[in-house]
Amino acid sequence: MVVKEYVTYNQVHKLCQEAAPRILEDFQPQLMIAIGGGGYVPARILRSFLKQPGSPNIPIQAIGLSLYETLPSTHPSAVNTPGEIEMLGTKVTRTQWLDLTSLGEMENLVGKRILIVDEVDDTRTTLEYAVKELEKDVEAARQKLGYEGEKTIFSIFVLHNKNKEKKGHLPDEMLKENRYLAARTVDDVWICYPWEAADIDEHDELARQQPAK
Amino acid sequence: MVVKEYVTYNQVHKLCQEAAPRILEDFQPQLMIAIGGGGYVPARILRSFLKQPGSPNIPIQAIGLSLYETLPSTHPSAVNTPGEIEMLGTKVTRTQWLDLTSLGEMENLVGKRILIVDEVDDTRTTLEYAVKELEKDVEAARQKLGYEGEKTIFSIFVLHNKNKEKKGHLPDEMLKENRYLAARTVDDVWICYPWEAADIDEHDELARQQPAK
Repeated sequence: MVVKEYVTYNQVHKLCQEAAPRILEDFQPQLMIAIGGGGYVPARILRSFLKQPGSPNIPIQAIGLSLYETLPSTHPSAVNTPGEIEMLGTKVTRTQWLDLTSLGEMENLVGKRILIVDEVDDTRTTLEYAVKELEKDVEAARQKLGYEGEKTIFSIFVLHNKNKEKKGHLPDEMLKENRYLAARTVDDVWICYPWEAADIDEHDELARQQPAK
Repeated sequence: MVVKEYVTYNQVHKLCQEAAPRILEDFQPQLMIAIGGGGYVPARILRSFLKQPGSPNIPIQAIGLSLYETLPSTHPSAVNTPGEIEMLGTKVTRTQWLDLTSLGEMENLVGKRILIVDEVDDTRTTLEYAVKELEKDVEAARQKLGYEGEKTIFSIFVLHNKNKEKKGHLPDEMLKENRYLAARTVDDVWICYPWEAADIDEHDELARQQPAK
């Protein structure tokens, strides 16, 4: 039986609120990149809590990534090792990428501190893709511009990290330097976010009935 | 005194849910364009309710628009007529536009039905800008491709429309053909959206205490 965990809007709001001081102190982001659709809601809420008096809002760029999990073969002899699944099992496609015209052809990203925002870190495949591709684009821009030592620093915020074996991997440096923040680490459960609820009152009631953690 | 209206997350959720059948029936959108940051949350919720069994999600493209209201001169002789304010008072800047690489150089927009989503229609300036600029880009793509009669149809969904004199204007055709839907029309009040709440419990309590409409 799949265990479900219901999360209310107000809980999502409070997870962002709770994380904001640490994000401001440790990551000091100058730009957010929201991975859509799941990252849209936390990114918008976070923007409110990252706003500093007298400073403008931290801008948000949205990107769209779709993850297709190709199921392993069901043939009995086809036993997939974790390594095989990692290599074969997933495909990420871009539905939206950065708008280079408004961003000034990537150069505005070079040397910046950028916070990538998504709802959940499940297999980590999407996050790996986002970090790798963004780093590649920024590095290409840095070389083109001839900037030396203008390092772009990526950090990650997710609402929930599932405590499970990951197919995708983040740069060692990012993990070592604690540039990854999950508001909550949960078991490998089915997280029911409110924006997917067909009946939001029932959803809230189910969340209320859950044993407190 | 400025009258405030508090809107909870669950109310936003239900406004999207309530609007979805009409959007599906009348607009039949093939793509959503969310105006960020305010349009992020309703667009994400709407995606859940627009999903048809057996069909993929309707894709969302996010754009970012910032509205700067330049105040009319305070010099006593400088009385601004509504026309003057309309011409002088506002400036919209793009912080993100469509990602043409993922969209296939605009051609994927030509001949499509596109739903523009934002939180509030206040002065209408941002919406006018979005519609005009999108129509211009799509028309240029249509001509370049040599497509005849492939009309792109834009429609609009907002959570709230403020019943006030508008500085921005939408195409007559759009209004005549009812391609504009506001979940609620309200007086010229200060709408407090939940994603801006510093204390979400207090916010909900203030919403609860409001006289029912």
